[in-house]
Amino acid sequence: MAHAERAEYVCPTCGSRFPADSWLWRCPRCGSPLDLVGDAGFRRVRLGEGNTPCIESEALGAMVKLEYMNPTGSFKDRGSSLAVGAARDLEYRCVSEDSSGNAGISVAAYAAAAGMGATVVVPRTAGGPKRDLIRALGANLVESETREEATRIAQRVRECAYVGHVYSPFFVRGMEGFAGELRSCPSEPDAVVMPVASGTLLLGTYRGAREVGLDVRLIAAQARGRAPLYEAVHGRDEGPPSRLADALLVERPPRLGQMVEAVRRTGGDVASVGDEQLVAALRDLMRAGLLAEPSSAASLAAYRSLLESGSIYQSERVVLVLTGSGLKYAQSLPGILGRG
Amino acid sequence: MAHAERAEYVCPTCGSRFPADSWLWRCPRCGSPLDLVGDAGFRRVRLGEGNTPCIESEALGAMVKLEYMNPTGSFKDRGSSLAVGAARDLEYRCVSEDSSGNAGISVAAYAAAAGMGATVVVPRTAGGPKRDLIRALGANLVESETREEATRIAQRVRECAYVGHVYSPFFVRGMEGFAGELRSCPSEPDAVVMPVASGTLLLGTYRGAREVGLDVRLIAAQARGRAPLYEAVHGRDEGPPSRLADALLVERPPRLGQMVEAVRRTGGDVASVGDEQLVAALRDLMRAGLLAEPSSAASLAAYRSLLESGSIYQSERVVLVLTGSGLKYAQSLPGILGRG
Repeated sequence: MAHAERAEYVCPTCGSRFPADSWLWRCPRCGSPLDLVGDAGFRRVRLGEGNTPCIESEALGAMVKLEYMNPTGSFKDRGSSLAVGAARDLEYRCVSEDSSGNAGISVAAYAAAAGMGATVVVPRTAGGPKRDLIRALGANLVESETREEATRIAQRVRECAYVGHVYSPFFVRGMEGFAGELRSCPSEPDAVVMPVASGTLLLGTYRGAREVGLDVRLIAAQARGRAPLYEAVHGRDEGPPSRLADALLVERPPRLGQMVEAVRRTGGDVASVGDEQLVAALRDLMRAGLLAEPSSAASLAAYRSLLESGSIYQSERVVLVLTGSGLKYAQSLPGILGRG
Repeated sequence: MAHAERAEYVCPTCGSRFPADSWLWRCPRCGSPLDLVGDAGFRRVRLGEGNTPCIESEALGAMVKLEYMNPTGSFKDRGSSLAVGAARDLEYRCVSEDSSGNAGISVAAYAAAAGMGATVVVPRTAGGPKRDLIRALGANLVESETREEATRIAQRVRECAYVGHVYSPFFVRGMEGFAGELRSCPSEPDAVVMPVASGTLLLGTYRGAREVGLDVRLIAAQARGRAPLYEAVHGRDEGPPSRLADALLVERPPRLGQMVEAVRRTGGDVASVGDEQLVAALRDLMRAGLLAEPSSAASLAAYRSLLESGSIYQSERVVLVLTGSGLKYAQSLPGILGRG
């Protein structure tokens, strides 16, 4: 903790600043999520996260960045690595998290690796296999009625550091390395398309790209019916809500303003995709041998939709981010794909 | 296929040699598995395999090489990448494979990526989630009564290249890069402990290590009741057979003689582990945040058993290889760990 004094939490809403030598997950003055500025010197917990492969897929006509090849099968590991490490360095003995699945598995694994306890609150609707993995990793699994209730419960677990990825400044910071890795893709991309819910990867990439001087358009793929970023940029979304994109369920992301800025300032865009587009995209991912989760297919579906509308140019070099692993969806995949 | 003429299949049993410009999976003279010698110039199918993380685990007291972080969740991807690529380069339109699971998923994904058909034959006892993933990837899934029958059926699929990992010279060759990667571990290892069934990773590492001048003891972990390498080195194995190590079920590996040589020549050893040891080891992997499949826990269990017997020294720098992903075992893990 030698350098903790140098770093600060900064509130992007009311401008308050607080030294990063204690655990804060929202602004004590106005309740906004915080940003972390400066080098806090926190040590990440390491399980092999990051530096995921970026390959050319001829079948898809784009490059793909395989975030599902993180240790617990999702990009969330980049955030957990730092958030859990910071909680440990600040001498917490446990962490708490609310999650529809991937973040819960990730936090459970990193807490275990750090020798800390973890309480993960999941809505009853969360997939069975994801719940099973959280339990297998030794976390205390708590069920809630809704996604919103999960958040409220996780924020109140006594004596635990709340690492909730939707708020945590450490999660966003933990993602920043992703941007620099884009330089190791087969060619340097003009645009990156990624599934977006709480916006941690979007914001981490935005800040990381500025840090390393990478000029890249940030394009968000959202699930129809849960597309607050799409609505903030394009106005009301229409059509039947997605039921498949179960990893993209954040209704009111507290960092929405920052997300809009990241998209606008990079000349990016947002697409909202429905289940029909998702299934077609997922099928093509499988045909390309890319074992991603259904929600990850949103980036391919959005890419196609924006190519068609002219918002992405044929000549652009594009990276599609596949954020989560299909290995967690073994049982449901054949049914979704009509191969039951 | 410019350089195919330079490479040869060599039979390690009868010494016959054949040019590697056609598909052979066993010696046409004596039926032995073949080795591939020289540079055939075959192009791998790429899905991001290899270069897996190697990290220090303080909790386990050893380094761990995370082969479960390959694209389809197992080390088999190193072999499929080359074997399916070679079949494609030799103008086959489909591949066939027999597998209890991991290799089948892997071959299905690489065949899809190569735009080829795949027939995967699995014994009825194979885990449901693994079968589901093979289907999701679009392969033709065939069920057999036994593991042995699966092999016979897969070898006879008309007009398909049989890429069966138990025989394929391409699978062994595809693993060779693993050895050089050991140099990127936190420290260069004196010994590597890996789960062994058909021996492809063991033999690939043995040959790859000689290639790059790496001096490392190769230590095999087998499952009690299916431990032919253990029996060949130490004599009769005793105790109740393992039911958990479902990825280590090859009863009569055709490369057994070569496997014995790899262990003996490197000053290595073999341990056979039972389910009680496996469960204890798996529990400790989860406590360390390492989401491996039950069979992979064999390397930790073997490490402990050989430390106790004095066959591995306390002072040795050891890498434990975790070959397969626990993400495929979501539903069964809590039960195995007593966290149901």
